Amino acid sequence: MNRTALINQIKTKKSFLCVGLDTDTAKIPKHLQSNPDAVVEFNKAIIDATKDYCVAYKINTAFYEAMGLKGWQAMEATCNYIPQTHFKIADAKRGDIGNTSAQYAKTFFQTFAFDAVTVAPYMGEDSVKPFLEYDNKFTIVLGLTSNAGANDFQKLTVDTNNQQKKLYEVVLEKIAGWGNADNLMFVVGATQASDLKNIRTIIPDNFLLIPGVGTQGGSLEEVSKNGMNADCGLLVNTSRNIIYASGDENFAATAAKVAKDYNVEMSEYLKDVF
Amino acid sequence: MNRTALINQIKTKKSFLCVGLDTDTAKIPKHLQSNPDAVVEFNKAIIDATKDYCVAYKINTAFYEAMGLKGWQAMEATCNYIPQTHFKIADAKRGDIGNTSAQYAKTFFQTFAFDAVTVAPYMGEDSVKPFLEYDNKFTIVLGLTSNAGANDFQKLTVDTNNQQKKLYEVVLEKIAGWGNADNLMFVVGATQASDLKNIRTIIPDNFLLIPGVGTQGGSLEEVSKNGMNADCGLLVNTSRNIIYASGDENFAATAAKVAKDYNVEMSEYLKDVF
Repeated sequence: MNRTALINQIKTKKSFLCVGLDTDTAKIPKHLQSNPDAVVEFNKAIIDATKDYCVAYKINTAFYEAMGLKGWQAMEATCNYIPQTHFKIADAKRGDIGNTSAQYAKTFFQTFAFDAVTVAPYMGEDSVKPFLEYDNKFTIVLGLTSNAGANDFQKLTVDTNNQQKKLYEVVLEKIAGWGNADNLMFVVGATQASDLKNIRTIIPDNFLLIPGVGTQGGSLEEVSKNGMNADCGLLVNTSRNIIYASGDENFAATAAKVAKDYNVEMSEYLKDVF
Repeated sequence: MNRTALINQIKTKKSFLCVGLDTDTAKIPKHLQSNPDAVVEFNKAIIDATKDYCVAYKINTAFYEAMGLKGWQAMEATCNYIPQTHFKIADAKRGDIGNTSAQYAKTFFQTFAFDAVTVAPYMGEDSVKPFLEYDNKFTIVLGLTSNAGANDFQKLTVDTNNQQKKLYEVVLEKIAGWGNADNLMFVVGATQASDLKNIRTIIPDNFLLIPGVGTQGGSLEEVSKNGMNADCGLLVNTSRNIIYASGDENFAATAAKVAKDYNVEMSEYLKDVF
């Protein structure tokens, strides 16, 4: 899916919601746990229930890999079940030397049919570029993350060209030059909403993938106010507080209700841009 | 495998060689390519041929994931085939928020039986700590990598406590405090051998996983001279120039010869410590 198609979906649905399928077998409803395809069945029910209210799904590879082969199968089945109308993100946070990053890009863009993959920036240009070589695919690089550990390195003060900047600012600025708004997005945590205005001065046009609304405590209103651009430019992800909204047999209906509430709130914030 | 057992293996074999199983179906000998289990057969032959000359094997997950389900199966079969006498590294470069890193730690330490996994530092403490919670397992964090992109961020000048340091120095120093030499190693590229003496002042005791000897051009002599400590403290990895040393039917014997040559050279450098 390209950027224009993504923006059209956002306009049509009045939603920039991404539902995170971080499906943990220990957390899905009890009545499903004996099912040998519990994860896939759970994901299908969540997708069916939420697809009218969101424009993207994000599969965090960790939860699938932890199950071994069976998990890898569940990830493939889930990826294939997501409708073509929705933007499919592999939240994999990969990155290696060029030769190896090329294999990861092949994994998510060819072996699987994801539209986007998250990438860690630490190893620099040759670790990011192989992902950018695919047409109509997006590389989503970690900028400023939502977790407490973001303070350890991302906010360090860096001296560069006689200026002092935060490391994440240098990361955003430098990596933005390796791609463009049609193939490159950045992760900025919702818990960092106060930094979003500044971030928009560095990368005005790129879409931002924003995790951290919901369980991690980020505010959708703050994110929207500070991070939106003329194309919306945001994909706000929430995982646990949608998919585990209820642990009973009505889990899908409850997930739908929470997703719809986000959709309603988002449609208000979108009135300023579309 | 714990640190004492690893050091004993190094002493016994007079080797600190790690063989990288970055097995790419396009690069294995032609006569194997029609075999449906080509990757596993190739890896088994390489392991049989090199196990007397090395103390560790490193599986880079990218090459397996690129093959989808079949690759995940090949990774499992390869991991299980590596002898218990050898240290098994998953070169996965993972890292995510705490809740998610815990799933990755489960993947490599429980679902698979790896002794160690490589981890990216950008997301900070809560992204690294879940890996450190396993007894007799090692977290190998990226410090200063072997690729050209290492210059983009890792060598930036950082202001911290009124001192100027390189980012990778801050990363090594801070992360060393989250673990100890029994559960924490660092990646330092062989192409950065001139920095190894300085790195040893920051982390004198931790083992270093050193990629970049061979195809990437690093010098084994320089690495040994500048990076060795009283326990040896080095695992030098080489992948492509051992496993693809020959493309013909004698590939395993040729790989053995190259591995043996490394072993002989390493035994010279080890004379200074054991």
